[in-house]
Amino acid sequence: MRLRELSRGWHRAGEVVGLVPTMGALHAGHMSLVDRARAENTKVVVSIFVNPLQFGPREDFQRYPRPVAADLELLRRASIDAVYMPRPEAMYPPEASTRVSVGGLTSRLEGLARPGHFEGVATVVAKLFWASEADRAYFGQKDAQQVAVVKRLAADLDSGVEIRVGPTVREADGLAVSSRNAYLDARERQAAASLSMALRKAADAYQAGERALAILHGTLLEELGREPLAQVDYAELVDPEDFEGPGTLAVLAVRIGRTRLIDNHDLAKPFPG
Amino acid sequence: MRLRELSRGWHRAGEVVGLVPTMGALHAGHMSLVDRARAENTKVVVSIFVNPLQFGPREDFQRYPRPVAADLELLRRASIDAVYMPRPEAMYPPEASTRVSVGGLTSRLEGLARPGHFEGVATVVAKLFWASEADRAYFGQKDAQQVAVVKRLAADLDSGVEIRVGPTVREADGLAVSSRNAYLDARERQAAASLSMALRKAADAYQAGERALAILHGTLLEELGREPLAQVDYAELVDPEDFEGPGTLAVLAVRIGRTRLIDNHDLAKPFPG
Repeated sequence: MRLRELSRGWHRAGEVVGLVPTMGALHAGHMSLVDRARAENTKVVVSIFVNPLQFGPREDFQRYPRPVAADLELLRRASIDAVYMPRPEAMYPPEASTRVSVGGLTSRLEGLARPGHFEGVATVVAKLFWASEADRAYFGQKDAQQVAVVKRLAADLDSGVEIRVGPTVREADGLAVSSRNAYLDARERQAAASLSMALRKAADAYQAGERALAILHGTLLEELGREPLAQVDYAELVDPEDFEGPGTLAVLAVRIGRTRLIDNHDLAKPFPG
Repeated sequence: MRLRELSRGWHRAGEVVGLVPTMGALHAGHMSLVDRARAENTKVVVSIFVNPLQFGPREDFQRYPRPVAADLELLRRASIDAVYMPRPEAMYPPEASTRVSVGGLTSRLEGLARPGHFEGVATVVAKLFWASEADRAYFGQKDAQQVAVVKRLAADLDSGVEIRVGPTVREADGLAVSSRNAYLDARERQAAASLSMALRKAADAYQAGERALAILHGTLLEELGREPLAQVDYAELVDPEDFEGPGTLAVLAVRIGRTRLIDNHDLAKPFPG
């Protein structure tokens, strides 16, 4: 495989390889990970692959944005060293039947809402790690539960890949940047700010001394309830390590029209901006 | 991890690394793989790990032989470059929850007789491949279905590890050498020859022109039926590639007393010896 040979050559020359796995439709969140990978490694690979395995049958795999030319132009300007864009038929030929699964934390929240999602994530991440022979891989905190799954996988399988996590990048009104924001019409775009607003209100309450999780949870739900377009999939306070039991990590999944958005914030930390 | 650093140093120096994964209790079958790995690579790692994950709750994990000193002496004489003997607690710490599974061919034969067995094999093999960063890995044809699972896994996960398969090594009477042969008492040891005898008879029939799989299958069962101590778990003729559908690969699992033995032979090839 071409990417492996490239990476092996780099390693023989003493280079350190950082991988930024993406599904394309690159935005400021991705590019902040790319910038960090460039600062921390001597070679950077960005993968672009809309992974069919992590989409449910009724999800937005077909609709998911694929602005390939714009993505490649962004990456060209970022002066990375390689783009890995495997075809779906090459990633999952008909005879392929191997899956990677992470137990425990994948049975809650996103895992419960999206059956098979994290098995799809774990399988593609294992493949990308192996094909790239990366030393480090970069993920965004916006997908908090995915980060926990990937860390678990990287450690459990002795991958040797170090996982580094970049902070969620937000628009001026607090909305977490996401490729799926492109689905929102003007009215929905306004409504989408309700997620970060709820996280901010709850974080402010924590900063003001509120420690009762039930009350902080109430603040989240109250804020989300103000927005008529927002349909809450889940809004929970969980342990930031294992996504089980109560804790200060507020995790949200909210439907705005046909678009499902997620966001999260550890209430023990001030909300940014 | 120590092994990874070793392997990375070797790769930087242009060495080619072969891995021979074993559960110890080394015998002539293992050593033939070690010899081949030495001939085909510039560095050889042998792993010894009795993998609890691939044993069922009623199987022989506790009883499995662990003659560590004798194993290490054999490996010392074979002049390999590293022995990897991880502790079970290091391989599977309590928080580890990642599993690798291969679909399709694992649902038949050994997979059916030993639920969870191949998930245990696939998980430990992925870990060993990753920790060793091996270029090639060596497995014995005696565990034919395991070979198919490992090849599938290595390809599906883009591991870059090339799988090489060594022929089954046999005692003078045809018995496939196996660590589990140590369980057999003198009478059982004689009875154990019935597996290879059945394979030989069926292969002889094929060589003599018999092509009807039902008749070849009958030959297998008839031969096994001659041995009162032999209790057949399965005796099937399957496709050597996918272990499904009819084919010329004769696969046997037979209990001799408390000991479960497996063997196989592609009837389209002359039986050795």
